[in-house]
Amino acid sequence: MGLEAELIEERVWERRREFLALNPAGTTPVLTEESIEAVPGASVIAEYLDETRGLALGERRLLPEDPASRVEVRRLMGWFLDKFDGEVSSFLVSEKVYKRFMSSAEGGGAPDMALIRAARANLRYHLKYIGWLLAERNWLAGSRMTYADLAAAAELSSVDFLGDVPWDEDEAARTWYSRLKSRPSFRPLLADRIAGITPPGHYADLDF
Amino acid sequence: MGLEAELIEERVWERRREFLALNPAGTTPVLTEESIEAVPGASVIAEYLDETRGLALGERRLLPEDPASRVEVRRLMGWFLDKFDGEVSSFLVSEKVYKRFMSSAEGGGAPDMALIRAARANLRYHLKYIGWLLAERNWLAGSRMTYADLAAAAELSSVDFLGDVPWDEDEAARTWYSRLKSRPSFRPLLADRIAGITPPGHYADLDF
Repeated sequence: MGLEAELIEERVWERRREFLALNPAGTTPVLTEESIEAVPGASVIAEYLDETRGLALGERRLLPEDPASRVEVRRLMGWFLDKFDGEVSSFLVSEKVYKRFMSSAEGGGAPDMALIRAARANLRYHLKYIGWLLAERNWLAGSRMTYADLAAAAELSSVDFLGDVPWDEDEAARTWYSRLKSRPSFRPLLADRIAGITPPGHYADLDF
Repeated sequence: MGLEAELIEERVWERRREFLALNPAGTTPVLTEESIEAVPGASVIAEYLDETRGLALGERRLLPEDPASRVEVRRLMGWFLDKFDGEVSSFLVSEKVYKRFMSSAEGGGAPDMALIRAARANLRYHLKYIGWLLAERNWLAGSRMTYADLAAAAELSSVDFLGDVPWDEDEAARTWYSRLKSRPSFRPLLADRIAGITPPGHYADLDF
């Protein structure tokens, strides 16, 4: 969309009052800008940005025009932001990342390997589903890139950072993700790092 | 919206192939109509109905026009359909209802009282939050009834059917829910029954 965003880290488990005032659910992401104090939640942000900037984007708009295509984009946004997140990435990110930064009173400590194994097992089904969608489509929701692709790539990249994506199991999914990684809007995200964790060699490699 | 809907019961744990073809996530609700085979998920259905019928509704439209108000409606739809559902109603409905109809291989059996107690404890916070919103507003998202009210009422009515809502703890929430129950679109829902479960006396009482 050509918008510059300043990213602010929020450790949600600390439950800062100022943050809870922006989003009582206490979850990230939350968008703030001059004209609106808080837009909480990835899919609410997506709808908001489309409503306020979408029309100017023409062919590059991330939510299509016709109702049936919008249903498919929203179905897949929910699939990745809720289902994939709840079955895969939230476990891996919590166990491997958040727990390092939490005190023991906040729930920190060693990762629970049973949860990590369950999340990895679930991930294989999701990767296969992505490949299945791409057998008939250029992008996850159809012939154009949409929010569905961004939602899937956001979830996958957090798991890929931790080295948990078995890319060799699905060539179509790998090729699609490689196309997304190469986009100018996506590339800077791949330079993001977390103290104490080194991503695998292929993580920021555009042609992995 | 003046639309007649035919309700079809789906026992999602049976994972019927025909149902999974409509919604691979295997969850209800799913809307089907002549012009579109499947619209899966309550919030996707809400957006779809607004996009295809909303403009004709004028003042009775359930999603407001301006972006900031839409953010608030969508935030609260998510709050109730995801957060309330995940913290309260999905536990109570699974433990008290679904488990009766499931075989033991499907996960059926006696309700887990620890989950029921946890869900009831969470519900008290949600009821207080509803009351807090209503201290400044006529309806949950502002001055008009919106999808936020319908989402909250849908979740609450399933729990109220099971007798688990401590209405005496929040007068504002009770009054708001009584107003919703009295609406012509809501009243028929209160006549719905599940074999083997008798709702409490106040459940279908409009002036409880």
